[in-house]
Amino acid sequence: MANITKKVSWSSRGDESGAAGEETPLLNGSEQSRPLRQQDSARGRPKEIPHNEKLLSLKFESLDYDNIENQLFLEEERRMSFMAFRCLEISRWVICGLIGFLTGLIACFIDIMVEQLAGLKYRLIKENIVKFTEAGGLSISLLLWAALNSFCVMFGAIIVAFFEPIAAGSGIPQIKCFLNGVKIPRVVRLKTLVVKVVGVIFSVVGGLAVGKEGPMIHSGAVLAAGVSQGRSTSLKKDFKIFEYFRRDTEKRDFVSAGAAAGVSAAFGAPVGGVLFSLEEGASFWNQMLTWRIFFASMISTFTLNFFLSIYENKPGDLSNPGLINFGRFESEAMEYNLYEIPLFIAMGAIGGGLGAFFNFLNYWLTIFRIRYVHRPCLQVIEAMLVAAVNATVAFILIYFSTDCQPLGPDQSEEYPLQLFCADGEFNAMATTFFNTPEKSVRSLFHNPTGTYNSLTLGLFTVTYFFLACWTYGLAVSAGVFIPSLLIGAAWGRLCGILLASTTSTASMWADPGKYALIGAAAQLGGIVRMTLSLTVIMMEATGNVTYGLPIMLVLMTAKIVGDYFQEGLYDLHIKLGSVPFLHGEAPATSHWLTAREVMSSPVTCLNRIEKVGTIVDTLSNTSTNHNGFPVVVQVSGDDEPAKLCGLILRSQLIVLLKHKVFVELARSRLTQRKLQLKDFRDAYPRFPPIQSIHVSQDERECMMDLTEFMNPTPYTVPQDTSLPRVFKLFRALGLRHLVVVDDDNRVVGLVTRKDLARYHVGKHGLEELLLAQT
Amino acid sequence: MANITKKVSWSSRGDESGAAGEETPLLNGSEQSRPLRQQDSARGRPKEIPHNEKLLSLKFESLDYDNIENQLFLEEERRMSFMAFRCLEISRWVICGLIGFLTGLIACFIDIMVEQLAGLKYRLIKENIVKFTEAGGLSISLLLWAALNSFCVMFGAIIVAFFEPIAAGSGIPQIKCFLNGVKIPRVVRLKTLVVKVVGVIFSVVGGLAVGKEGPMIHSGAVLAAGVSQGRSTSLKKDFKIFEYFRRDTEKRDFVSAGAAAGVSAAFGAPVGGVLFSLEEGASFWNQMLTWRIFFASMISTFTLNFFLSIYENKPGDLSNPGLINFGRFESEAMEYNLYEIPLFIAMGAIGGGLGAFFNFLNYWLTIFRIRYVHRPCLQVIEAMLVAAVNATVAFILIYFSTDCQPLGPDQSEEYPLQLFCADGEFNAMATTFFNTPEKSVRSLFHNPTGTYNSLTLGLFTVTYFFLACWTYGLAVSAGVFIPSLLIGAAWGRLCGILLASTTSTASMWADPGKYALIGAAAQLGGIVRMTLSLTVIMMEATGNVTYGLPIMLVLMTAKIVGDYFQEGLYDLHIKLGSVPFLHGEAPATSHWLTAREVMSSPVTCLNRIEKVGTIVDTLSNTSTNHNGFPVVVQVSGDDEPAKLCGLILRSQLIVLLKHKVFVELARSRLTQRKLQLKDFRDAYPRFPPIQSIHVSQDERECMMDLTEFMNPTPYTVPQDTSLPRVFKLFRALGLRHLVVVDDDNRVVGLVTRKDLARYHVGKHGLEELLLAQT
Repeated sequence: MANITKKVSWSSRGDESGAAGEETPLLNGSEQSRPLRQQDSARGRPKEIPHNEKLLSLKFESLDYDNIENQLFLEEERRMSFMAFRCLEISRWVICGLIGFLTGLIACFIDIMVEQLAGLKYRLIKENIVKFTEAGGLSISLLLWAALNSFCVMFGAIIVAFFEPIAAGSGIPQIKCFLNGVKIPRVVRLKTLVVKVVGVIFSVVGGLAVGKEGPMIHSGAVLAAGVSQGRSTSLKKDFKIFEYFRRDTEKRDFVSAGAAAGVSAAFGAPVGGVLFSLEEGASFWNQMLTWRIFFASMISTFTLNFFLSIYENKPGDLSNPGLINFGRFESEAMEYNLYEIPLFIAMGAIGGGLGAFFNFLNYWLTIFRIRYVHRPCLQVIEAMLVAAVNATVAFILIYFSTDCQPLGPDQSEEYPLQLFCADGEFNAMATTFFNTPEKSVRSLFHNPTGTYNSLTLGLFTVTYFFLACWTYGLAVSAGVFIPSLLIGAAWGRLCGILLASTTSTASMWADPGKYALIGAAAQLGGIVRMTLSLTVIMMEATGNVTYGLPIMLVLMTAKIVGDYFQEGLYDLHIKLGSVPFLHGEAPATSHWLTAREVMSSPVTCLNRIEKVGTIVDTLSNTSTNHNGFPVVVQVSGDDEPAKLCGLILRSQLIVLLKHKVFVELARSRLTQRKLQLKDFRDAYPRFPPIQSIHVSQDERECMMDLTEFMNPTPYTVPQDTSLPRVFKLFRALGLRHLVVVDDDNRVVGLVTRKDLARYHVGKHGLEELLLAQT
Repeated sequence: MANITKKVSWSSRGDESGAAGEETPLLNGSEQSRPLRQQDSARGRPKEIPHNEKLLSLKFESLDYDNIENQLFLEEERRMSFMAFRCLEISRWVICGLIGFLTGLIACFIDIMVEQLAGLKYRLIKENIVKFTEAGGLSISLLLWAALNSFCVMFGAIIVAFFEPIAAGSGIPQIKCFLNGVKIPRVVRLKTLVVKVVGVIFSVVGGLAVGKEGPMIHSGAVLAAGVSQGRSTSLKKDFKIFEYFRRDTEKRDFVSAGAAAGVSAAFGAPVGGVLFSLEEGASFWNQMLTWRIFFASMISTFTLNFFLSIYENKPGDLSNPGLINFGRFESEAMEYNLYEIPLFIAMGAIGGGLGAFFNFLNYWLTIFRIRYVHRPCLQVIEAMLVAAVNATVAFILIYFSTDCQPLGPDQSEEYPLQLFCADGEFNAMATTFFNTPEKSVRSLFHNPTGTYNSLTLGLFTVTYFFLACWTYGLAVSAGVFIPSLLIGAAWGRLCGILLASTTSTASMWADPGKYALIGAAAQLGGIVRMTLSLTVIMMEATGNVTYGLPIMLVLMTAKIVGDYFQEGLYDLHIKLGSVPFLHGEAPATSHWLTAREVMSSPVTCLNRIEKVGTIVDTLSNTSTNHNGFPVVVQVSGDDEPAKLCGLILRSQLIVLLKHKVFVELARSRLTQRKLQLKDFRDAYPRFPPIQSIHVSQDERECMMDLTEFMNPTPYTVPQDTSLPRVFKLFRALGLRHLVVVDDDNRVVGLVTRKDLARYHVGKHGLEELLLAQT
């Protein structure tokens, strides 16, 4: 344990800014861990990346979840009356309501578009298949199917790959990072939202093994970030409202609400949404905030439900609370016995194992993609290929399937395919593929015993497993929830059928739908490893509290088994992105370390009254790129070292430089207006880089007084504070910079996100990640 | 705002200990606010109390939710391997499972006992009434009923009033305080649990307007505190397990789980339980902890469900997840339309108003009780009186009621009373009174239209309202949830009936049960003012997600309207107890205040190597009674003031004195074993008072070295830190003492719970509570 030493030579940096560093030769795997080259992976895929998750990128900035309580802020707060605070509170509620409403609308839009377009596609293909089944010439149908799929996916992939690569995937890892306090560029912009929404429609219609649920969470978050700021930089429109909320602290609260509203709309699970936001984002529990988040979630699911009921011509029938609807589980049919619980746990273990295998495959696939499939056009081609393969595999399976089922009067399939079955029968394999994944899940849960035979389910599980694994990580906007549920439901139902066939008392295991549900939970849990929120989401989606305990046990087992082999899919992708993600608690065995060992030092400090030239030089220094600077004051004689008196951020200094708030100017031009909080808010969140600010040689000699702008009471810790204690303070208060001081209140170091995110428990005890430049 | 000054003269104290202060003359209402006399209200009721909620008692100690990371602790943590941490984690899970299981068992026990005893009582009375209805002589039945009730309640009141007064009421305010960090004496002891459980059975059987749900939360919490410590001081039994968990931090986590398990068992609402614990207890969000709490909740509801299903001879039928069962709301029957939402909101407003009225009446009643009904025998007599009045009122209402309903074949009433109705009919008024309140609630929700007429419901609402109000605060163990629900359900159903009769399209408002549900939510929300957790509890208890939005809107309205008039019932009782309760956030307009103004100063500091005599004298000083002492070290010459180097608690000093850890002794008797964490854990939580520790005159001259035992890295803030910032740090980390230092790291003050709890937003902006001695 004692051999943990700092291996990095640039540990003196505070917090890295987004300004691009220079490219230096790649030194992958080098013990020295010199700066590694890696392009901004959000904008264009990097050409070469160290395929090593044991790195922590220095390119990510942090968000400021701690209020900068400088004089300006305090003055404003003190000017505010109690009524003003009330009004702010009311605006927060209004915004949350708006977020919920808009998220619900978007979910509704996606749902209707997907249903219409997919319906069109399936009708076309079905007609074609019906036409050619007798005539012979089904290969034309296959071509049509593959072409339609590829075309849709091509469109979806083009907008993602060429216009907004950050919109790829489900967006959940990105939102997790944002709520955790990591600034992911462009993750909450309007353009991202548009690409995300349009993209997901086309990938679902394109028949990929994807869901439209994950992207809802991202969509809700973007909406929240936009609505709460009362302006859109993309649209160049400032409504001059909600200016008070233009800072990271407030924005995060709304983004939490947006993410929750997204979950709520996706699964009809308002409580699950709240818990998702808390699980991913919360550090400090705030009752009023949680209550508002819940409000947004409620409004969101209600809006979706309401508009869908109008669309379905059953206004007022509020039985469609989410995009995915597990259907009604009747308590009678779904009863379980105590002795079934070990079986459920075993299924959880299978789900955990399969999930780990899925993640393992996806991990290597992702590394392959990072290396070789980084150009947008290649990404589009890969997506089209997957779409075509999807159609082909489905077609072949359907073609060779002999699982014919009678077409009953209460047939729930929308597009039953007869193919080579007898009249009045349909191909069971086709129902699983020839449908949107959401409907296939529902069929697997609820179709009566005997709808599918074992071979169909087995083949389907295997093929869909690999297809889904291949699909996740493509440059399309798509979620992994539904494919996971579908895989799990398939093998879960298979388990149910096999159990029923091995026992004599068949009636006891009568309902394979029950096992489908457990399998779905196990598989999803094995892949994403969410716990509390997933349990509640599943409970709410099934509308059945009785199933709470089994689902919980299954998810726990899946997580324990899965974690043994491989991390969860989202965590894996976060790690592959080298994001400095802070988990809930410090690693268990980290009491060995103290602030002295983890902090970055020496620290670049500024004087309270500092020369403009020094500030410009400090900010321009690309080799350090600090974002936060302790402000010190020299007391009584030069022999004594300077004491900490505040903390100032790069973004604040930039605004000060831009407005030329120099002491000499203030003295000479007395009319110049005082810099206000508004100036900082107007610049938020896209502060200009230092290079864009021109400071003349004369101005360089001026002085700047930081007293009014710095945070005069930054949180500090003594050098001997243990890492868990530092971690707790840092995480609980959402800090960005934590100043380490000695007994005399002199600055000796600075703890930032990367200093804490570096440590994790690996196979050999506590391990330290290497820091990589950009 | 600027007129907020410190009015109290003993602001120099850190944190008050439980050691009894001397009684000083009462100076009620004095502006000088000198120490006010008030007996330990938990043990014996005080003779005279300032009936003024604008006081903050100094007698309450705080809990240490911040780990004392001294050398001993760090050494232990560093010795622990990764496997040891794993084992600890597993024990935590095992304990939570055990807590859930035992809580479920207790709930099951209460339920069965109440059902059996109440059944016996009602059968007896019914037989008697049937016998005398024709013969004339019903007054004998009344006497029997009143006598049976009084007898049960007498027993319940005697054990509470004479043996454990803290077990009175629902226990929710006490658990709220405990989770908030206030030490309430004897609140989590085994004796309290026994009295609570037995008491609630007798008060429910005694026919009081009470529920058995609130006490479940307290019971779960006591169980959790007991199980997690692996010993019982009451039973003088130490199992020598779970010793690691013998500190406030860990204990609180388990108590949260216990409270959640209690809610879960009471309402069949595992998610609601988790949210209740979070809402009341959480400051720092911990994912693993929440997940464990959820586990305990799940196990608890499952255990209850399982054993109840066996009791009811339907093993495996898991449809009774809680003590109160709202019954199954069919979505079809319970549909609501958009235009009904304003009606629901109006009902929420009514609920808020009625709730505030309830609280207002109860407030004056409580003050009356504190003044005049403080002797245990008086309390028992009052409880018996209420029980007799309950029976009498019910009897009179039933006697004069002419609301006869046909006795259908699908009759759900267990004890239908015919009385003066025609054959084949029963008295509808009797069904509301002649039943446990839980069953009455269910009847109001589900009985078909026309079961009750308006007059019955109106009379019932009014009488039950006053009865319930009179009952809350009696010296019996009882909850207020069910009576609130019952009042609300009655007037809610009345609203439904009135609406149906005023509109022509009667079918539209066909189901008054829907309005009963909304009314119940409104009334409960108006009384207790819980928000998020109550919404989820109601949602889970109804098993219907569709009703989430209306219930939420109703609860919000009820809270807003209610808060306008009067605080929530629990908060009111907490305030009447003068408990230093910390809310989630600092008051809105408190940016005016800084640490310098709120802190207590001067502070009694100890030197790192301190004379035993000084320590004994400091601890013995009853006029200060500090509980935490900053440890300082003198650096380089006497002219410079001492610098902060740690913090030590009274409890630690007591253990050190008891073991005579003096420097001289360590030198002379080298064989003496080193003091270990175990010694502190063994003494936890009942540290002896300083008076019980004998220190000889020679020993007084010895020195004590505090280095190893003090927390070397206490959290500190500069003097200029604003109150909200101090508050956030204090609350988020669950601190007990926060040291205020100057620029040179010298101690200038100490912020404790009472310093922060003092400020609240009143009618005239920010107000300050007076501090009262004991």
